[in-house]
Amino acid sequence: MAAVAAAAVVNREAFRQAVVNTLERRLFYLPSFKIYRGVAGLYDYGPPGCAVKSNVLAFWRQHFVLEENMLEVDCPCVTPEVVLKASGHVDKFTDLMVKDEKTGTCYRADHLLKDFCKEKLEKDLKITEEKASEFKHVLAVLDDLSAEELGTKIKEYGITAPDTKNPLSAPYPFNLMFQTSIGPSGLSCGYMRPETAQGIFVNFKDLYYYNGNKLPFAAAQIGQAFRNEISPRQGLLRVREFTLAEIEHFVDPEDKSHPKFSEVENLEFLMFPRQDQVSGKSARIIRIGEAVSEGIVNNETLGYFIGRVYLFLTYLGIDKDRLRFRQHLANEIAHYATDCWDAEIECSYGWIECVGIADRSAYDLRAHTEKSGVPLVAAEKFAEPREVEKLVITPVKKELGLAFKANQKMVVEALEAMEEKDAMDMKSTLESKGEAEFYVCTLGKVVTIKKNMVTISREKKKEHQRVFTPSVIEPSFGIGRIIYCLYEHSFYTRPSKDGDEQLNVFRFPPLVAPIKCTVFPLVQNQQYEEVAKRIAKSLTAAGISYKIDITGTSIGKRYARTDELGVPLAITVDSTSTVTLRERDSKQQIRVSVEEVATIVKEVTDGLNTWNDMLWKYPTHSAAATED
Amino acid sequence: MAAVAAAAVVNREAFRQAVVNTLERRLFYLPSFKIYRGVAGLYDYGPPGCAVKSNVLAFWRQHFVLEENMLEVDCPCVTPEVVLKASGHVDKFTDLMVKDEKTGTCYRADHLLKDFCKEKLEKDLKITEEKASEFKHVLAVLDDLSAEELGTKIKEYGITAPDTKNPLSAPYPFNLMFQTSIGPSGLSCGYMRPETAQGIFVNFKDLYYYNGNKLPFAAAQIGQAFRNEISPRQGLLRVREFTLAEIEHFVDPEDKSHPKFSEVENLEFLMFPRQDQVSGKSARIIRIGEAVSEGIVNNETLGYFIGRVYLFLTYLGIDKDRLRFRQHLANEIAHYATDCWDAEIECSYGWIECVGIADRSAYDLRAHTEKSGVPLVAAEKFAEPREVEKLVITPVKKELGLAFKANQKMVVEALEAMEEKDAMDMKSTLESKGEAEFYVCTLGKVVTIKKNMVTISREKKKEHQRVFTPSVIEPSFGIGRIIYCLYEHSFYTRPSKDGDEQLNVFRFPPLVAPIKCTVFPLVQNQQYEEVAKRIAKSLTAAGISYKIDITGTSIGKRYARTDELGVPLAITVDSTSTVTLRERDSKQQIRVSVEEVATIVKEVTDGLNTWNDMLWKYPTHSAAATED
Repeated sequence: MAAVAAAAVVNREAFRQAVVNTLERRLFYLPSFKIYRGVAGLYDYGPPGCAVKSNVLAFWRQHFVLEENMLEVDCPCVTPEVVLKASGHVDKFTDLMVKDEKTGTCYRADHLLKDFCKEKLEKDLKITEEKASEFKHVLAVLDDLSAEELGTKIKEYGITAPDTKNPLSAPYPFNLMFQTSIGPSGLSCGYMRPETAQGIFVNFKDLYYYNGNKLPFAAAQIGQAFRNEISPRQGLLRVREFTLAEIEHFVDPEDKSHPKFSEVENLEFLMFPRQDQVSGKSARIIRIGEAVSEGIVNNETLGYFIGRVYLFLTYLGIDKDRLRFRQHLANEIAHYATDCWDAEIECSYGWIECVGIADRSAYDLRAHTEKSGVPLVAAEKFAEPREVEKLVITPVKKELGLAFKANQKMVVEALEAMEEKDAMDMKSTLESKGEAEFYVCTLGKVVTIKKNMVTISREKKKEHQRVFTPSVIEPSFGIGRIIYCLYEHSFYTRPSKDGDEQLNVFRFPPLVAPIKCTVFPLVQNQQYEEVAKRIAKSLTAAGISYKIDITGTSIGKRYARTDELGVPLAITVDSTSTVTLRERDSKQQIRVSVEEVATIVKEVTDGLNTWNDMLWKYPTHSAAATED
Repeated sequence: MAAVAAAAVVNREAFRQAVVNTLERRLFYLPSFKIYRGVAGLYDYGPPGCAVKSNVLAFWRQHFVLEENMLEVDCPCVTPEVVLKASGHVDKFTDLMVKDEKTGTCYRADHLLKDFCKEKLEKDLKITEEKASEFKHVLAVLDDLSAEELGTKIKEYGITAPDTKNPLSAPYPFNLMFQTSIGPSGLSCGYMRPETAQGIFVNFKDLYYYNGNKLPFAAAQIGQAFRNEISPRQGLLRVREFTLAEIEHFVDPEDKSHPKFSEVENLEFLMFPRQDQVSGKSARIIRIGEAVSEGIVNNETLGYFIGRVYLFLTYLGIDKDRLRFRQHLANEIAHYATDCWDAEIECSYGWIECVGIADRSAYDLRAHTEKSGVPLVAAEKFAEPREVEKLVITPVKKELGLAFKANQKMVVEALEAMEEKDAMDMKSTLESKGEAEFYVCTLGKVVTIKKNMVTISREKKKEHQRVFTPSVIEPSFGIGRIIYCLYEHSFYTRPSKDGDEQLNVFRFPPLVAPIKCTVFPLVQNQQYEEVAKRIAKSLTAAGISYKIDITGTSIGKRYARTDELGVPLAITVDSTSTVTLRERDSKQQIRVSVEEVATIVKEVTDGLNTWNDMLWKYPTHSAAATED
């Protein structure tokens, strides 16, 4: 089995090499600052890559911002410390690092352990069943290991620095934010934002007002984010600067229904619920409507966005059979989150998280409310005052202080933050048993609460409005990762006409293609070149990006060149009145007039008509005449 | 005269306050991280501002990248030190700063001096003619003053810290780049890029290859740039993070003609040549074709871009009477630049540089060639080998060393870098007079070169190709500044219907408008709201951004609200079959069917038809019926 796995790895790597070679050779992307030997984890998008990216972002705007009337904002990357202190990034946005004790080279501790276990499993044919299952277990719980546990494993397995075989330091946390200083005094610390979301949260009050003080509404932001990775790898997948597109949908925590849910409820796709993962099952096709009604997905709004993300990714050209929505396991999910699903796309590196869709409850708005003192809340005004029963939790600080000493504050906060249901459960347990077990997430442990430590009751009050902190549902898109997976899903090879070489093709949908069409004068003569220029002008007027190739190279070679850029249509100028229009994947050709050709290209690339419609409408052209 | 000037200042400031109030109230922009009391020089674009920005950028891509087939790239903001060392930013991208000697607060030295002189000129009615002309002179040469000279003036005038009146330190340079550290070792210094251009220069070799090893071609980049300003002011005009859109057009230094120059040569607009500025004249209207043929503008390519920039800005809605192209004075222009023009837009802050269009000669590519050791050059292959006469400059290092000691290296480099004409001039001067005056820019002074210090000759060689460093012509757009000026140029007020208040309007062209149309059900009833929803759906399908306002507010108030956002068209649903379509500036209204309305809005906002065309085609509607 290890041999089969190894062969699969070789295949995957050969495929990846073919894709990456084409991408780099055609300047879809390239290492940044190459003439200075580059910087790990920084890449440039060259012309076709840049065009793909701007197409993907334009479609994101259309599909999400415009269709849902979202409020798009644009905030700076430079962020003062206080904001990221409130969000938790200053204290917790870290990875565990080990250092080569002699050279000082840094590595991610979990990566070294992961590589070691994988290598053993894939290449060591002699390991025992017992050892194999131990390594598998380590891989499964990798994300959960503490610094100490990682250090113990690294020592136990005798893992050394990969480049030098020198001994390694114990693991210690390294903050992944790029730090800088704002203003000339050197006293004001700042960071390059690690995500765009915080810019939206701190503006909640103004955005809510802009929306007429009404919920739900969504804000969105596209922009650069920065993570000073310890040791970037996997090419475009783990980089130090990347484009994020994030949505923060604010909703009443008591009503997470979505008015447009019915538009997506019948979509079916691969889902991988927590329960199935834990019990060792595979991902399976589930109708999103069913996932919500059965409580697999927590609420309609979360389900709606999962459906919309599915549509977004598949319209772009992501293969639906290699796309799954995986629910976070209990150990992955943030303590405050209600539910979280990752859109994972399978590529040669495995299943890659490309979009995260989380119900983050009220966490972020509460954190900024607390730090800034500005209440980030919404209000529902009642038509007439209502008598409401309110949950009142009153911790008895004296008793708690005696019992928990320095931890008192955290226990108090956790008690006060209890949800209705948890509080009422505790109330009845306290009444029946006199004490209750209680998990305090900020302490990371369970404590025992005695009856005299807290009173929980429901009291009646008259209220004119209900003031509450909205929940936020956050779909967050790693644009670079989506694009890289799209490259892999779009790539294929086919033999050249004489069969002596393999030609590369990207089967991008027109929506994504960096250039919509090419114009080739069949032979180098002035007449044809003038027709080509006339066509070029009409393409520009129609807003279609194109490329003219007037080199004398054979048409077959010119087709191969643009197939490699994923250009869907090619116009060959082979007369002064009509031209040949060729489709990339089918290689079918039709004859159309010079006057019409721009319009036809526009209709096909805008999706108003399909290539098949055109095949019915226009005479086909025999390939033999031009393909060589 | 001082009184008149003071009144003008008050007017300008009142106008600015009205614009800025509207912009902030309607969330076009807002101070970033407001709930934490903000950070000077950082602003967010709220929903309408973000939409305006993305419209401006989309049009920039259409007008420049697509129309000129430019190679767009996308490089990271995080930049390693070596790149910015080569470009000169590490050593020279500084402003002179003074510190409050007691509190440590920092100020820009030139700003304090400028404010002092301006205040004296505007508000001190008792100053002598002589003093006045001294202050005017200081203002004119402000950018030229050295640290010492600035310090002397500040002392002489007794300028103190504005907030505390404490004494100030002597001026010293402060580097404006945000510094950071790349990777976990802490050893690799990096900066947030101060401009996007360097990312293009370091990729020249790959881009040239991508373009089939042919010149000319242009690369372009849109992205964030960062400048850690000492004391940001003037709102959106001087900020610490901003969006730049830059073009680097690479061209053979021996042929700077442009094939499409004839398309712009008849454009006429305000130009302000160096000569006119020096001799105290005003800007005047010049035909760009004339400016190039008379040598006012150095070459056709530079002229072509000036013309294209003029078209770009005026299409956006910049008032052509408050737009001028000002040539850099001898003291402003970089020593390596051949010519440089700024597109300046007049707003309440005065004439603001919004686009710089410079012929930077071969400076940047040479700097990176030298630092990286990778030749960033182009080659022109000859059909058959050519006998060429080549300029050979051979500095005699021994003699130069004796004469210039430590400065020898800089004199040698300056001699070797001489252009053909300058070298031949020096040769003949040396021959006739035995010595020649020579300006060494890196020393900032003129030295005397004797005959025995250099030999200059022309030698014949056989060559198969000509290898050269291309010149680069760089139009560089400050997007935030353009947008701010656009806001001021688009803003006006008009009385409300009963004349009791002034209403604000932005007269954005549809191209720029953040939202293309609004939909108002006349009264709150289900029938009208359903029609509104149907219209909304057809607008979304047509790709038109819109806003529905179903509040019961009067139609007049709702119109006023969207006029303030610059929405060009409003649809009022006042029946179930036909609706009223109203144009923002004329307030004219027509009646159109529910089915047609989205198409009509699309035609007008896409510029396929004008509002006037529609007035001919559809029945007009009396304003009285709905405007209240």
